[in-house]
Amino acid sequence: MLFKKVTVVGLGLIGGSLAWALKQSGKVEEVSGVDIEEKTLRYAIRQGIVDNGSRSIQESIEGSQIVVIATHVGLIPMIAKAIIGCSAPETILTDVGSVKSSLIEEIESFIPPEYSFVGGHPISGTEHSGITFSNPNLFNSKRCILTPTSKTSLSALNKVKSLWEAIGATVLTMDPETHDRVFAFVSHLPHAVAYTLINTVASEREPENILSFAGGGLKDFTRISESSPEMWSEILIANRKHLLDSIQAFKEEIERLHLAIENNDLQALMEQLRRAAGVKKSLD
Amino acid sequence: MLFKKVTVVGLGLIGGSLAWALKQSGKVEEVSGVDIEEKTLRYAIRQGIVDNGSRSIQESIEGSQIVVIATHVGLIPMIAKAIIGCSAPETILTDVGSVKSSLIEEIESFIPPEYSFVGGHPISGTEHSGITFSNPNLFNSKRCILTPTSKTSLSALNKVKSLWEAIGATVLTMDPETHDRVFAFVSHLPHAVAYTLINTVASEREPENILSFAGGGLKDFTRISESSPEMWSEILIANRKHLLDSIQAFKEEIERLHLAIENNDLQALMEQLRRAAGVKKSLD
Repeated sequence: MLFKKVTVVGLGLIGGSLAWALKQSGKVEEVSGVDIEEKTLRYAIRQGIVDNGSRSIQESIEGSQIVVIATHVGLIPMIAKAIIGCSAPETILTDVGSVKSSLIEEIESFIPPEYSFVGGHPISGTEHSGITFSNPNLFNSKRCILTPTSKTSLSALNKVKSLWEAIGATVLTMDPETHDRVFAFVSHLPHAVAYTLINTVASEREPENILSFAGGGLKDFTRISESSPEMWSEILIANRKHLLDSIQAFKEEIERLHLAIENNDLQALMEQLRRAAGVKKSLD
Repeated sequence: MLFKKVTVVGLGLIGGSLAWALKQSGKVEEVSGVDIEEKTLRYAIRQGIVDNGSRSIQESIEGSQIVVIATHVGLIPMIAKAIIGCSAPETILTDVGSVKSSLIEEIESFIPPEYSFVGGHPISGTEHSGITFSNPNLFNSKRCILTPTSKTSLSALNKVKSLWEAIGATVLTMDPETHDRVFAFVSHLPHAVAYTLINTVASEREPENILSFAGGGLKDFTRISESSPEMWSEILIANRKHLLDSIQAFKEEIERLHLAIENNDLQALMEQLRRAAGVKKSLD
């Protein structure tokens, strides 16, 4: 047995899948869940996703060695504060948020030295959300990034690492700023651009006529823009600094494209498109 | 038998699939192909995609009632001129280009009154190109847009319509400007944005580290940016006027997003993202 008790706070797609995977791993004696929705808790208990659950953090976390915060990004620091207020010292806190620096900075500003917080981000998920989409294999063979700082205890880091490895994930570490810069470019900017593209098309006159031809290329962007607006607006704001840099870089790049088309410069345009096609090849 | 002979000029993905579908339909007595590549012609004949083929337009089109131009957009007017120079009057010319107004305008400026040109755009295709990807069912149950003008003869329009219907496509008509505006928004702008996004990410320092996390959202954009840069730069330039409008609208939309993030305005940002998510729902 790896852990006697782990509590997951927030039983959405990620939290539900994590709790379920831990249960199925057989390496955690007791998996407890916290959610604000009674309905979600009942579902989680009925499906065997958790051993027990409650709406109260205090009630659920008693005796937990690790508490995983799996709520929306915007709530993580507040939940961390609540956990610290009612848990035993030496409890290890970790999270699954897609943005790291700003929350870690905030949490480290108030966390007492006898507690540990280890930032985490499993690279997995779908455009869906909610416990009914959860899946105990969601993290199997996927990567999970942990983002220790100079304040993170090595022992806490290793425990959180073993938690993710117990459910089949490959753990790698990155400093929070690098993490946020990488994900600004590969995830947050693409989401921002997809939402923007859909809004641009929908604002055009005759949107219905236009949308009936969405198969012409637009459809590729709609999966991403299906993701929860509430969750994503919090993520985009939380990674504000790096995201603004990436949007700026994107604006300069589209300006180049705009100019090539405006100038009827087929050569310059083809060169830009070829550059992108080359990147695609390197991804294959 | 619907037609005695149809010639397809340009045996790429679209031309090859069209020729093959016409052969299989049993409604065309003879399907002839023209391509500049000997290798492509040999492949097309060996696979039974065409009955015969040649590198010479003059040789292949003899006796054809309809000649379909299925080359890159930039070549269509020149090929139309060559066909007119060596075909019998009353030959019907049509094409499969994704942009219509500029080429139709050019072709109508030189086409003699005894010939007919009917603009066409089958809404089908993949990110692949070349005859080896062709598929006789590519247009089955897909839409094909024809874009007649005041100069198009009704009889020619009906013949081209019956050609597409013979291979299972649903034909609808649209004026060339409306077509180009719709496709600027649903297809050309999304392609331009996808290429731009990939280039933005690739220009960032540590691109390799970044690209290894492309699964975070970027991957959705890479299929589209895999499309042929040569073909797409011609399409983007050919639909310059409407595309520039759509890029301008996109730039204004991303400016709004930029501003909401810069101002830490979660409410405004969420409202923008919700608008896009609503559009997605209307597409389902």
